[in-house]
Amino acid sequence: MGWERLTEKLAGVVAIPVTPFDGRGGVDEPAYQRLLHRLLDGGVEVVTPNGNTGEFYALGGDEAARGVEATTRTVGSRASVVVGVGGAVPDAVAAARHAQRAGAEAIMVHQPVHPYVSLDGWVEYHRSIANAVPDLGVLPYLRSPRVEGRHVARLGELAPNVVGVKYAVADPVRFASVARDAGLGRFVWIAGLAELAAPGHWAVGATGFTSGLVNVCPALSLRMLAALRDADYPAAMRVWERVRPFEELRAAGESENNVSVVKEALAQLGLCRRDVRPPSHPVDEAARQRIGVLLESWGLTRPAQAMAG
Amino acid sequence: MGWERLTEKLAGVVAIPVTPFDGRGGVDEPAYQRLLHRLLDGGVEVVTPNGNTGEFYALGGDEAARGVEATTRTVGSRASVVVGVGGAVPDAVAAARHAQRAGAEAIMVHQPVHPYVSLDGWVEYHRSIANAVPDLGVLPYLRSPRVEGRHVARLGELAPNVVGVKYAVADPVRFASVARDAGLGRFVWIAGLAELAAPGHWAVGATGFTSGLVNVCPALSLRMLAALRDADYPAAMRVWERVRPFEELRAAGESENNVSVVKEALAQLGLCRRDVRPPSHPVDEAARQRIGVLLESWGLTRPAQAMAG
Repeated sequence: MGWERLTEKLAGVVAIPVTPFDGRGGVDEPAYQRLLHRLLDGGVEVVTPNGNTGEFYALGGDEAARGVEATTRTVGSRASVVVGVGGAVPDAVAAARHAQRAGAEAIMVHQPVHPYVSLDGWVEYHRSIANAVPDLGVLPYLRSPRVEGRHVARLGELAPNVVGVKYAVADPVRFASVARDAGLGRFVWIAGLAELAAPGHWAVGATGFTSGLVNVCPALSLRMLAALRDADYPAAMRVWERVRPFEELRAAGESENNVSVVKEALAQLGLCRRDVRPPSHPVDEAARQRIGVLLESWGLTRPAQAMAG
Repeated sequence: MGWERLTEKLAGVVAIPVTPFDGRGGVDEPAYQRLLHRLLDGGVEVVTPNGNTGEFYALGGDEAARGVEATTRTVGSRASVVVGVGGAVPDAVAAARHAQRAGAEAIMVHQPVHPYVSLDGWVEYHRSIANAVPDLGVLPYLRSPRVEGRHVARLGELAPNVVGVKYAVADPVRFASVARDAGLGRFVWIAGLAELAAPGHWAVGATGFTSGLVNVCPALSLRMLAALRDADYPAAMRVWERVRPFEELRAAGESENNVSVVKEALAQLGLCRRDVRPPSHPVDEAARQRIGVLLESWGLTRPAQAMAG
């Protein structure tokens, strides 16, 4: 099977949609569909349900599965769907097979949450999952600086369908080294720390980046992508300056409000409720006001009656 | 409901049994039952299936549930069963209710693996789970130094069945402060970092400690418990010296072999296979030999033909 079509799309903005909740605390599927259409209309070509911005670790297994089905049904052929899977190998394999049945093209394997990760075991963990779904593309979500290029290379030998890596260690030197040792051309390298980290990682080999901000303002993420593709770093950094206060709000306090800030912005735009599930928590009033000011500075219109929640 | 009987037992050695696997990679229930009987015969009064030493994060949801049933069935009234639960609130609540139906007395709530934990959200996460099973005791497994005594106190107000805390931050000053601010007498404080950390935490307020080593040599863990109860710290430190090389092997390399070392020892004693699931990995030959020497030094007999695996 050729992976060209998928890997071409992955070299872009990989959107991680939020999972909106309804007034009873369940998943608000109509709002989710509206948010997906907004991403697609904005030009997004890859969406990842069950990513961290989608509060994967706060969703029950059934909810996560239904979210995948809602995504592929809504997206159709307009974008590639890369489904986040994780946890124990038996559960991750079941989720990957379900994603395939639902029509997804690839899976992103969350970093193992297991407290005792050996590097040989890291390879074996991903191999076990990837080999169970040989017709799906697979992207490890790499958040540990311990994993070296040779481990990724070995995984690529054992599982040809590992087509890319979402690299999320905040160190472009480490990233450049791992990517070259693993195979810069063997895998698509996706900068996994969103817009603020994207230029520094793009400069050394990334050809795509993930985004949660794109939920709020697709145009900004895509403007940064266009600038990076043109190697116009000053233009990319102009976007960087505009999104910096928003992304810093998300990163503050060990990222405790990473998703809450995005949902607060979406609530102010009338697109979904601001509710997040524990152990996250909605932002406080001061942050709400700062987010409102930022949205105005981005030219996003606020309806007279924003959505409650 | 009174919690005296449970809290008295929790103030002791809280054993975290391993989950042995069979030759096909599934859970080896007969071996598991043998290991439980060995713990009970050794004097253990609390067992926690689905803890980290039990490879909770490598078990599928169904396997974890069957493990709970095997535990309560095997243990009967000989010990209290404290079931590890975790993940998203809906899944954790379902697991907690299942534990209750199976006859467990309490649950230990694994630290949230969610990447975006707010402190208010930490309280809400545990409250949601604890309130769903008001007749079970609940113990948060606290691995984050960010959580303060006031958060634990607040949780205790919202959920009277939160009867204890498994505290696993490697800092006795922090532990002493959190325990006092939360309520030294309101909760049972269990030192969550096993034998090497137990004396330092006991000195400032712990009245129990968790153990993975106890799978291998119950007598050593219980000897340390007796010494600590007698405030005989020199005697506790004599046990400390004896177990130190074993526990250091488990802690090396960011604890990558935490469980592998225990299972290697059990395999050499002929009690179960040495297999661990990815992302963990069996220990190398050098570690095997060191473990063999340690077992001999503890007076544990090795059968002529140790179990393969």
